[in-house]
Amino acid sequence: MFNISILTIGDEILIGQTLNTNSSWLSAELSKIGANILTQSTISDNKVQIINEINRLFEISDMIVVTGGLGPTHDDITKITLCEYFDDHLVLNEVILKHLESFYIQRGRTLLESIALQAQLPSKCEIMFNSVGTAQGMLFEKEGKFLISMPGVPSEMKAITKESLLLFVKSKMVELKSKVKVHKTLFTIGVGESILALKIGDQNKFLDNNSSLAYLPSYRGVKLRISVVASSFEKGNKIISKIENVIMQKVGEYVVSNELENIMELISLKLIEKSRTISVAESCTGGLLGGALTELAGSSAYFNGGDQVYSNNDKINRLGIKTETLIDFGAVSKETAIEMSENVRVLHNSYYGLSITGIAGPDGGSIEKPVGTVWIGIATPNSSKAICYNFGKNRTVNRELSVGYALSMILNDLNSM
Amino acid sequence: MFNISILTIGDEILIGQTLNTNSSWLSAELSKIGANILTQSTISDNKVQIINEINRLFEISDMIVVTGGLGPTHDDITKITLCEYFDDHLVLNEVILKHLESFYIQRGRTLLESIALQAQLPSKCEIMFNSVGTAQGMLFEKEGKFLISMPGVPSEMKAITKESLLLFVKSKMVELKSKVKVHKTLFTIGVGESILALKIGDQNKFLDNNSSLAYLPSYRGVKLRISVVASSFEKGNKIISKIENVIMQKVGEYVVSNELENIMELISLKLIEKSRTISVAESCTGGLLGGALTELAGSSAYFNGGDQVYSNNDKINRLGIKTETLIDFGAVSKETAIEMSENVRVLHNSYYGLSITGIAGPDGGSIEKPVGTVWIGIATPNSSKAICYNFGKNRTVNRELSVGYALSMILNDLNSM
Repeated sequence: MFNISILTIGDEILIGQTLNTNSSWLSAELSKIGANILTQSTISDNKVQIINEINRLFEISDMIVVTGGLGPTHDDITKITLCEYFDDHLVLNEVILKHLESFYIQRGRTLLESIALQAQLPSKCEIMFNSVGTAQGMLFEKEGKFLISMPGVPSEMKAITKESLLLFVKSKMVELKSKVKVHKTLFTIGVGESILALKIGDQNKFLDNNSSLAYLPSYRGVKLRISVVASSFEKGNKIISKIENVIMQKVGEYVVSNELENIMELISLKLIEKSRTISVAESCTGGLLGGALTELAGSSAYFNGGDQVYSNNDKINRLGIKTETLIDFGAVSKETAIEMSENVRVLHNSYYGLSITGIAGPDGGSIEKPVGTVWIGIATPNSSKAICYNFGKNRTVNRELSVGYALSMILNDLNSM
Repeated sequence: MFNISILTIGDEILIGQTLNTNSSWLSAELSKIGANILTQSTISDNKVQIINEINRLFEISDMIVVTGGLGPTHDDITKITLCEYFDDHLVLNEVILKHLESFYIQRGRTLLESIALQAQLPSKCEIMFNSVGTAQGMLFEKEGKFLISMPGVPSEMKAITKESLLLFVKSKMVELKSKVKVHKTLFTIGVGESILALKIGDQNKFLDNNSSLAYLPSYRGVKLRISVVASSFEKGNKIISKIENVIMQKVGEYVVSNELENIMELISLKLIEKSRTISVAESCTGGLLGGALTELAGSSAYFNGGDQVYSNNDKINRLGIKTETLIDFGAVSKETAIEMSENVRVLHNSYYGLSITGIAGPDGGSIEKPVGTVWIGIATPNSSKAICYNFGKNRTVNRELSVGYALSMILNDLNSM
């Protein structure tokens, strides 16, 4: 296998002020092309630590993918450390300097000195061009092993990866005849990890040393990931098919896709296929469900807007909820959820009306309606219903799970007759 | 210093399907009490790798904090590996078993066999009780160094950390008379990292070997973090004050807080202090701004709901935008943004009306209005205005930056006379 270690440099990650989304994204992209991600690590903006970590990772990996520490500010020392490590020195790269100048001129700004320094690059490295920013990707080789250093800004790291790094790794894997690690994910909704594990049972009955199964829970469903090491994608996929069949026999009822792992992509495809539109009425989620429904480009084809009705006044004045409904049953009730979904559907002239009303917490609960009680309503031209969930005490979790289950309800309806 | 390494076990992280939010949260909490986070690493659910990594991290750290690999499913092998590593064996813990039974009975469910196994625990470890889930925290000691293993489910890991781990680390640091690492963050809005670095200039003039300054950009502002190593919090804070004064002289105009790093907390405090309410009219963000404004508990004190007006029809029918405005200037224009903010303010009877209308991309741009063009409007009882931003080509980035700049506009208005 082609073993890759992902190394993040940056105190902002170590101290917990920034979430390491780069490692996650890089791992996913490199896994897709069959590489094996051996380890991810994060260390400080510190020369000695960087050198020690590179030494350690070169021992175990074919390639080290480094992000961070290449920006224009003082705390970024990766570039000079790499120069020292690879016994190299900086030279002015005229092509990059020209590019930086035009980059700034296009935006009507002058080139800051700190940014012009980004055109000073190690003489021995191969430049992997950054088409969206100022810090370049730098590829070094040492005794047949590779290190690529990229900026930590996600959009820039992603551009360099897509335009250069993935192609490089692919061609190396072909050249070295590396074994590949192939993955397939079955995406389930409406069921927890424990129940799935119970139904799937002893996995040693259908897995061997070269195959594995992982349970990946998220707010929007549990993913079952099958992984197989094989000499080619073709052979790996054959083995995966067999394992997939076994799993489908056991828990197929919950699986909504074996291709897409993003519930919004599934919903988007079905809404467009069936020419249906959707509107939302959100109380405790404040707009997050609309945010989810507009995540994908082209969402104007199905998202017909909605109403963020946080207070009773809003529910009455903007959504026409009957005062009696709120008095008799309360804002967090089946009746209010249904009326919200029906009214928002009609007001926005949509096929679906979806509503969320609940007690996100951490305060505001009662014995009858504890924190975490959420009613989700769905209305179509022919019917309406609401389901009650009891999520728990954490505000963020309750809001995210409310969005996740609301999306499940839409998808289930779209998948029904 | 008390050096801590954070170790995450889990293929779901390595393959990039799950974002490692645990490392980030743990690092932040442990940093707050003065511990030094030396490294974060992620490895596979694999016995040999786990043992090698523990050996490596024990060499360099006083404590290893492990998360992941303790759930009820087959792919979790951390517990048996730790037993092997610490030459221990599992014994049934009757107290935990009783707790697990009552946990399930309260929820009206029966105890699954896979979950009862969670009461089988290593005999030598100290249990750090999990009050919100089934997998316990396990604290091991080896030659004066420590390892704590916790489940990967964020809410459970957080409960164990808050209720037991932080107290343990604090008491160890006192016992060992460890030096502390103290941090302070200045939160800026409305300015980029490069400009800040230029204005701050050569940081060697006010920093020494025991102090450092980091620039932490995010969608909602750039944080400037000062870090100092000292023999006590008191001494560290004195040094930090001096550095802070220097930085404030250079870029104080952009700093909105030296205590809170969350713009929503700042906005929330000010809105409540001034008894002002807010409503939102969102086009390309689909509800994300309302989602942000309702992130904090108690947001009903100021959030008066809003309208997700994605289409022109929505803008006309729900928000009363004049058809002529849309025809004459387009949906993405100063005039539409202002009218949206004014109308949503009046319709919801709020002090502030905030609007976002833009081209999130990746498609839909033109030469005059390229992808990334976003107008943000703000209306009060006395005035209204709109500002145009040009963010870039990435849909997610454009939506998040739109929310970030809209929040900056509210905070700026709240901070003005």
